[in-house]
Amino acid sequence: MLSPATPIEVGAYEIANNLWLIIATALVFIMHLGFACLETGLTRAKNTVNILFKNVGIGILTYAMIGFSLMYPGEGHAGAWFGFGGLGIAPPEDYNPATYADGAYTYWTEFLFQGMFAATAATIVSGAVAERIKLGPFLAFSAVYVAIVYPIVGMWHWGGGWLAAEGFHDFAGSTIVHSVGGWGALAGVLVLGPRIGKYVKGGDGRTVVRPYMGHSMPLAAIGVFLLWFGWFGFNGGSVLSADPESISYVLVTTTLAAAAGIFGAMFTSWVVQKEPDLSMILNGILAGLVGITAGADVVGVMDAVLIGLIAGVLVVLSVVALDRARVDDPVGAISVHLVCGIWGTLAVGVFAAEKSFATQLLGVGVIGAACFTMALLIFATLRYTVGIRVSRTDELRGLDISEHGMEAYTGFQIFTVQ
Amino acid sequence: MLSPATPIEVGAYEIANNLWLIIATALVFIMHLGFACLETGLTRAKNTVNILFKNVGIGILTYAMIGFSLMYPGEGHAGAWFGFGGLGIAPPEDYNPATYADGAYTYWTEFLFQGMFAATAATIVSGAVAERIKLGPFLAFSAVYVAIVYPIVGMWHWGGGWLAAEGFHDFAGSTIVHSVGGWGALAGVLVLGPRIGKYVKGGDGRTVVRPYMGHSMPLAAIGVFLLWFGWFGFNGGSVLSADPESISYVLVTTTLAAAAGIFGAMFTSWVVQKEPDLSMILNGILAGLVGITAGADVVGVMDAVLIGLIAGVLVVLSVVALDRARVDDPVGAISVHLVCGIWGTLAVGVFAAEKSFATQLLGVGVIGAACFTMALLIFATLRYTVGIRVSRTDELRGLDISEHGMEAYTGFQIFTVQ
Amino acid sequence: MLSPATPIEVGAYEIANNLWLIIATALVFIMHLGFACLETGLTRAKNTVNILFKNVGIGILTYAMIGFSLMYPGEGHAGAWFGFGGLGIAPPEDYNPATYADGAYTYWTEFLFQGMFAATAATIVSGAVAERIKLGPFLAFSAVYVAIVYPIVGMWHWGGGWLAAEGFHDFAGSTIVHSVGGWGALAGVLVLGPRIGKYVKGGDGRTVVRPYMGHSMPLAAIGVFLLWFGWFGFNGGSVLSADPESISYVLVTTTLAAAAGIFGAMFTSWVVQKEPDLSMILNGILAGLVGITAGADVVGVMDAVLIGLIAGVLVVLSVVALDRARVDDPVGAISVHLVCGIWGTLAVGVFAAEKSFATQLLGVGVIGAACFTMALLIFATLRYTVGIRVSRTDELRGLDISEHGMEAYTGFQIFTVQ
Repeated sequence: MLSPATPIEVGAYEIANNLWLIIATALVFIMHLGFACLETGLTRAKNTVNILFKNVGIGILTYAMIGFSLMYPGEGHAGAWFGFGGLGIAPPEDYNPATYADGAYTYWTEFLFQGMFAATAATIVSGAVAERIKLGPFLAFSAVYVAIVYPIVGMWHWGGGWLAAEGFHDFAGSTIVHSVGGWGALAGVLVLGPRIGKYVKGGDGRTVVRPYMGHSMPLAAIGVFLLWFGWFGFNGGSVLSADPESISYVLVTTTLAAAAGIFGAMFTSWVVQKEPDLSMILNGILAGLVGITAGADVVGVMDAVLIGLIAGVLVVLSVVALDRARVDDPVGAISVHLVCGIWGTLAVGVFAAEKSFATQLLGVGVIGAACFTMALLIFATLRYTVGIRVSRTDELRGLDISEHGMEAYTGFQIFTVQ
Repeated sequence: MLSPATPIEVGAYEIANNLWLIIATALVFIMHLGFACLETGLTRAKNTVNILFKNVGIGILTYAMIGFSLMYPGEGHAGAWFGFGGLGIAPPEDYNPATYADGAYTYWTEFLFQGMFAATAATIVSGAVAERIKLGPFLAFSAVYVAIVYPIVGMWHWGGGWLAAEGFHDFAGSTIVHSVGGWGALAGVLVLGPRIGKYVKGGDGRTVVRPYMGHSMPLAAIGVFLLWFGWFGFNGGSVLSADPESISYVLVTTTLAAAAGIFGAMFTSWVVQKEPDLSMILNGILAGLVGITAGADVVGVMDAVLIGLIAGVLVVLSVVALDRARVDDPVGAISVHLVCGIWGTLAVGVFAAEKSFATQLLGVGVIGAACFTMALLIFATLRYTVGIRVSRTDELRGLDISEHGMEAYTGFQIFTVQ
Repeated sequence: MLSPATPIEVGAYEIANNLWLIIATALVFIMHLGFACLETGLTRAKNTVNILFKNVGIGILTYAMIGFSLMYPGEGHAGAWFGFGGLGIAPPEDYNPATYADGAYTYWTEFLFQGMFAATAATIVSGAVAERIKLGPFLAFSAVYVAIVYPIVGMWHWGGGWLAAEGFHDFAGSTIVHSVGGWGALAGVLVLGPRIGKYVKGGDGRTVVRPYMGHSMPLAAIGVFLLWFGWFGFNGGSVLSADPESISYVLVTTTLAAAAGIFGAMFTSWVVQKEPDLSMILNGILAGLVGITAGADVVGVMDAVLIGLIAGVLVVLSVVALDRARVDDPVGAISVHLVCGIWGTLAVGVFAAEKSFATQLLGVGVIGAACFTMALLIFATLRYTVGIRVSRTDELRGLDISEHGMEAYTGFQIFTVQ
């Protein structure tokens, strides 16, 4: 048992640097509330309890047992494609908090910060498969994806694997976190199929897309603001020190990209949908944030605005296109995290002079292929064994009653059919 | 393009100081969610989407393009009444993060912190003009007010202009931020007029004030708590360093004033309205916070309690008086930000021995005249060109449907007529 | 009047350490919003305004006047069982921010951090007595409990009293904060009795427990996430410095215990109640957090998981058992804060080799006896003088209308009878 009662002497430099990563960890933690609110707000009232339940993550436990050690195997355990440092978490034998990571953070801080990132990937999937997936199988998917797929792929870049050697650049995880989540989401949606009644045949034989409106726009807005708030830690913390110039510059590009994302989505939505759609604006913020995440440290200020702007346009077009293709993603997770995650990673190759577009594309492609294949495999296995989709009756009644035996709102009258 | 990849060597002092301003920036950022929740909660369900939309600020973009450079023109560009450092943001040519601002924060941190402040002013206006203003004209007003009016006026004090030379003291912006927003709100309300049905003639010929109750008290409470939370950064960050004694003292006066504001508003509301009104208590918190903002650094602990207490009384009386005068402010923004902003600024002249009451009054007067005139001008111009008020039908249907073609809540039954 | 205008020179070490406690204070502050949301979400819509009102604490004012000085009387004033440093707050005469508390925080920071803790104890009581207690008497109880009972008992351990001398270990307050609140809650519930209709006689003469479902699960979830977020400051700040190894280790045990609490509660709830109950999971998180709070600094990583897991089991069993005993606690506050507070304190004696189980038991027992007796006394006094329970009619109508003359939600249709 470790006793922190006798701390090794550290100086103000170590204290200040570690402090920032601790705070960044807390900020990334609150992103999980952001996702919970966003996903709940953008779906129907009858599935609220179920979505909240799925977002109360226990991912950190499995990440502690297996994931962290797969992602950061440590010296002597890492390979180019795979490494494993052993079960559980424990600092290295010669551990000295004052010198570990050049004094920028402790072993425990590193684990916590990375653990919060890991839990994010599963949360992204949750929204896309909402309103029709069974609880148990979803939890099983999450556990495996967070404990095994995410960390192995993440090791390729952040853990010192082959992508790091190639010169791939993904600052805070447009690809490593967001598109990993996005590929999982796409696989889940394809295996599950659309929600009942989402795509119906019209009189003229053409497919009609029924808008299932989210049941609470304030909840969705709270979610997005909290995600933006959390991104201060997600991108700012990814500097992995509290170097003033670096963290402040990264937060300027991050903030401007988010604001530009609003603008891009608002403009596109006003033109395409003829009305300024709030849910598009909200997704525009996230699009800008996901887009800038890969290159926040290496692109210029005006580049950041442009990256966010384009991400805002892309997210609206992608939402519309996916619906045309009958890919039913209730909250737009695929458009935000996968499409804009890819865009952001490639944008590094476009805007940062010293980075190679080809390498960025390689990283996007290989990680995409790996994650999508693995996610498909897990979802398909679950489908053909325990089943992953609730019954038609249960879906129509709502998952709150059928899976949890309770309603999210009582004392309000709720129309359970929408 | 700036490359933060090769940071200049800085020490722990610079790291710790800059860190505080970064965190303060994040806290001020979350105030925008606070405003969004508060304004939404205190208005009717049928205008929810519209209010959320107006609070998803893109103000930071216009502030980056023009505002920051107007407010902090920099050496060689500043005048007593006007200065401009050029379009866009860029650090000075001889920029060194280790020595900029005596090492207390970087150029980028300064921009971000100030940008978050700027966006606040527009948000204050949003609540007062809610439930009847057109979306486009409101966004136009915001853009101009944040990019031009706020920074020019702010430069007079914080940017080294004539008010700074006069010895005016407004620590974190009771006047520079809150009453600037408040004057904009008053101008907007006067140009717009009251909501339909708010003031009706009773049988005896006297005006009857109809209470349009907010549609969600939990949302309003979440908003106020988040604003209080954000004020840790708003006032604490305004120390512009992380000096332990200064930031902790400022936060003690801030916290006690907020708590005293509750007490003042609760007592007044219980006496005047015969019942303990939750919305009054919530505005009492904000009143205390706005009141202490000008002098948090220079008044005593018991003075802070007194300033907050009086602010809490004032806000209730002001809300009642404005309604008598048929000035329709749905959320009480004028009472909170303008009335208590003036009170707080004058209170510095009363409680801080070394400050001049006359100078405080001068600052309040000149800034008030400038902002109110400019805001009236902008609103009037918009009114007589594109129009600023939605049609009677649209106002009755609610702006969510008429401006955005969507509802904030589905699956709940909502009475659209209140 | 204190003038912070001329700060004493401090170095980066003092700045960084103080900064952490300031941030921790802000995080503990937001726990009050967490409690407000949780308690509101888990109770009925008709009592929402009332619960929000009770959570808008003015406890910080009474704590400033009396409580802080009772809890930390300072040198020359402290006794083993009682001490008082005088009315109000003021730094010691020879105060030097650079050397106070070894430079880890200023006097003002200490007061703020402790003040936020104090307000927590009253908030815990609020949930348990919800939906039937009169507003005035509750506020009176809170004021006395926060200003006198909590600080006197707290002084025994944290203020250097007899329990500190005994070697009792309660790191961040499983007993000193949470069970103090929990004992107050139990006393309140016993004096008040259950809500009307909660326990009814069935046809066979056996008691039937009617589930009064909370009216908004998203609110409850927001509350729990915010509490978890705040616990970063509650436990992390209790290190009372920003020592990297200590704060990061404490946050690892804290986070893992919370995650294990989910697991324990989910498993137990699935077995006992046959369905995965969201409100149990949410209380499982809090159970894990309360459980680890006493020993977060001295137990091992796997011990923390075990402590959280057991806390999660205990909270579910306790909720069921209390209902069987007809102890009506609408939000489960007694199970979370009292039961798991005791468990966590005893667990220190079990898992930390150098701590004595007997001493932990002694502390739990004496503090429990003192708090429960005092709380009973206050509640009974209020009951037999001004009365503490609203009338039957008022309880059925809901306290929002009867105590505040307003509704929490308008524009939604609300079933006022549940």
